[in-house]
Parts: sequence; structure tokens; C-alpha cells
Amino acid sequence: MQQVGGFSNEEMKSLFEEWNKGELESYLIEITAKCLGKKDDLGDGYIVDKILDKTGMKGTGRWTVQEAAEQSVAAPVIAAALDSRYISGRKDERVNASKILQGPSEIPSFDKDQLISDLKKALYCAKVTSYAQGLGIIKAASDKHGWNVDLSLCARMWRGGCIIRAQLLSKISSALSRDKDLPNLMVDSTFASELNDRQLAWRRVVSVGVACGIATPALSSSLAYYDQYRRESLPANLVQAQRDFFGGHTYERTDREGTFHMLWGDTHKDLGDLSGRRAGEL
Amino acid sequence: MQQVGGFSNEEMKSLFEEWNKGELESYLIEITAKCLGKKDDLGDGYIVDKILDKTGMKGTGRWTVQEAAEQSVAAPVIAAALDSRYISGRKDERVNASKILQGPSEIPSFDKDQLISDLKKALYCAKVTSYAQGLGIIKAASDKHGWNVDLSLCARMWRGGCIIRAQLLSKISSALSRDKDLPNLMVDSTFASELNDRQLAWRRVVSVGVACGIATPALSSSLAYYDQYRRESLPANLVQAQRDFFGGHTYERTDREGTFHMLWGDTHKDLGDLSGRRAGEL
Repeated sequence: MQQVGGFSNEEMKSLFEEWNKGELESYLIEITAKCLGKKDDLGDGYIVDKILDKTGMKGTGRWTVQEAAEQSVAAPVIAAALDSRYISGRKDERVNASKILQGPSEIPSFDKDQLISDLKKALYCAKVTSYAQGLGIIKAASDKHGWNVDLSLCARMWRGGCIIRAQLLSKISSALSRDKDLPNLMVDSTFASELNDRQLAWRRVVSVGVACGIATPALSSSLAYYDQYRRESLPANLVQAQRDFFGGHTYERTDREGTFHMLWGDTHKDLGDLSGRRAGEL
Repeated sequence: MQQVGGFSNEEMKSLFEEWNKGELESYLIEITAKCLGKKDDLGDGYIVDKILDKTGMKGTGRWTVQEAAEQSVAAPVIAAALDSRYISGRKDERVNASKILQGPSEIPSFDKDQLISDLKKALYCAKVTSYAQGLGIIKAASDKHGWNVDLSLCARMWRGGCIIRAQLLSKISSALSRDKDLPNLMVDSTFASELNDRQLAWRRVVSVGVACGIATPALSSSLAYYDQYRRESLPANLVQAQRDFFGGHTYERTDREGTFHMLWGDTHKDLGDLSGRRAGEL
């Protein structure tokens, strides 16, 4: 918003205040407006501009990312937030790298109103995928351990007190109560329709970031997640072919049942009975 | 390559063979050509098109991602590869989602030669950042535990036998032997110059994927990593402001030493002596 759109702190503050009146309404949007508008208590200007860009952490992000991996759940938006903290901590390295590594030499100009409208939609999409991923971790652990967690209740609990409280959680709770076996929040009819309506705006924002050299790790990784999840066929067949080539890990076929191994070349051996092998399993 | 460029299996095979003669030369590029060109042993066509797009795993990717988080190292490219496997495994969910979630309705056309040239450069950049992240995990663990790992020797060891063997490893080994304290592979003068020369192509490829609805999780997350790492100032100051707002986690300032807490509003309390608190620490 600052570097591409040229927004002032007051403009950003007003925008977050406005966003907090609609579908983005949440505690974090509310306090973002307040953080952006707060004057420095020890000098001129705004405090946010005096705060060192190194983000600390207490370990919950780390634990979530490790648990997602443990449960075989993709949670790239949450991981992007964690990685951003890690990279922020390496301030000295970044200062050095900023003199060495280059971005685009020119930043194109964009229509400010379009950018605001697109940002709002992209942020909403990223929030939905973020909740989808977080709930996916809990669902996987619940399924695995037979905890029988009521995800709708989870979402309702987060509405009280917790820093992720948001208007969105009511909608999430309803979706999860309509379908207790919903595989992913994104395919609920309400959320699917909202994502479909907003996906082009989401793409425009990520493209602007890419073209201007401004990293948008959460917005871009959530879009990649969306584009992978909605794809009937992924290039994972090639990866599985490679795995069978270099490690005899076998593969399944689309046209018949069973587990297969290819004699890719002269050095490959017949693996014999494959019934004990489990292809494609996570 | 298939969906946007309209490449046939034979064209892709030839391209990977050609790439394997230059700077991309590696075992995985070599076998990719072979996997793409291999005919089905049980029917017509190519085997890769018959292989089910569900990728298995043995756990090394999971372990690496968990260890990266443990060491406070960002490794988004490695995580993207792992997440892609997880998402590939949810084939039934994807088939269902493909009928619900939408992408762009039109795929624009692109110049094929430009696309090939850009893809080659983007792949090279992603490979460099991938090695940078993997080596970063080892470096962090070595620094923490005082293992005194010779990273240059690591890179040289990987040249023999291992499936990640690649011509690139000679260059990596040289860079790490020139500077034993190199904070990140990307800022080595040789690699920095190569990345700078290729970053626009890298951006074009990611933009094409975003515009066409084709997820490129490794290419896009590596670009975001590059764009974050080369940035002197990140928006982490805002995150640190939010953390001080909701949890009194304090912050450092850019203009003076010490640890600070803001009385953001009427409900915020003076935290008293902050000397025991550690702001911005990972």
C-alpha cells in the first residue's frame, strides 16, 4: 500500500477503519487502524514508522507449522506468516542483501481505487484460506485420534476474547454446522461463491506485487493453495514417476487398480511382488 | 508447460534434455526427460499420463520443514514441495473442488520461445533459492550447536550419488569455500549477479501462472523469499506494533536503543520496567 499505492499512514488508517465495518470486521483489522494512526510518544510522526521491523514470536506459529507437517496438512499461509517473522529477524542480512539483490527498476502506476477494491477482496480470500488451513490441521488431528472435535464450535469459541476474533467466524461456524464433514472450508457453497467472485482481484494484487518486487507471501501462497486445491489433475504424476525412477517407490495408475513399477531403463530392475508396497500414500 | 504453452510430451522431453546440457544439468532434470518420454508398458501413449497424480513420501520433506521451523529458518520452497505432495494426496477432494472453485475463464496466449527462455531462468533461480534455504537450515543448526559444519564440503558431498546431485553444486561449493560465513547463498557475488540477470524472467513466469490459474508454488514462494530477503525494511514493524497492542510484547525502535511499550489506548497499562523483556527476538 505504501510503496505501490503511495498511501499515507492516515489513508491506511481510514481504510482499515472502513474495512472494519464490513466483511473484514475483526479485532486485528480494528487494531491495525489504531496502530497505523498512533502518533509517536517520543518524537514527531507516527510510532509505526519508528518501530524496528523485526518481529518477535512466542512459538505458537512454529508449533502450528510443525503440527501441520505432522498431520500431512498443507498450511502455506500460516507458514508464510512464520517465515516472514524469521526473515524479518535477519535485519542485518537484509540490509546487506538490499545493496546486492535487485528488483524491477521501474514500478508501474496503478489506479488507486482499483487497488483498494482489489486489496480488500484479496485480503478476504487470504483470510478464508487461512482459516481453512488452520481448521484443516485440527480436523486431521481429530480424525486421526478420534477426538470428534466439533469444528463449528471451535469457530464459535474463537469469537470470544481471542485475538483472531472476527465477524467471519460466524459465517465459518454456520458453514461447519451445515456440513460436519466439510473437507475444506473453501468448498462450502457460501465461501466458494465468495472466492469465485473475488479470485480475479486476488490474482491482480499478487501480480502487482510480483511486477513491483513487493513480496506478498501470504496472498501469493494462499492463491497457489487455492489453485492447487481446485485442480482435478496436478503435475504430481511426474513427481511420482521420478520417485519410481530413482527409488523404485512405485505408482498407481489412473486406468487400473494396483501398484506398478516401470523398468525405466537398462539399469532398472523388476521389483517382483509389489503388493507389500504402498504407492502414493502420505 | 502443458496447459499454458501447449507443449507435447516429446517437446517437454527434448527441452529437459537440452536444459540438462547447461547450467541446469542435474540428475533430476536428466530423469525428468526420461520420465516424460517413456512409453506406457501396458497400453498406448506415455506412462506419465497414466500415473495417478498422488505423490507419496518417506518423511524426509516433513522432517526438513519441521527442522527449519525449529531453527527459525525460512524454507518456503522446500515447504511448497511438501505441501504440494499433501495436496496431491487429497485427490478426491480436488476432483470435487474442481467442480466448485473457479479460475480465470480465459487463458491468454504467450510467445512459446519467450516462455521457454523465461522458464529456464525461473527454474534456475528457484533452484538457487532452494539450495540457499536447505543450506540455511544446516548453517543455523551448526551455529547453534557448535558443529562447525563445512558447508562447502556438504555441497561437494551431494555431488556424488545423491539424487540432488547437480552441476550447480560445484558453483555452490566454490561460493561457500570463498566465504565460510556467507549468510545466504543468494548474496554470493556469482549467484547474486545470476539472480539479478534472471529476476525479471522469474517474475514473468510467476505472473503467467497467476493470470492463468496455474499454481507455481515453488517458483512463487521462492520469488517472495527473494523479494523479502533483499528488502532493507519489511512491514514487520506493523506486526510488532500489533503484538505490542494486543499482548504487550514490546518493540525496539529504529532511532534509539532499548525496549519500548506504547500506551495505545485507555485500556493499555504501563508495563513498568521493560528490561527483562526481550523485544523482536526469535
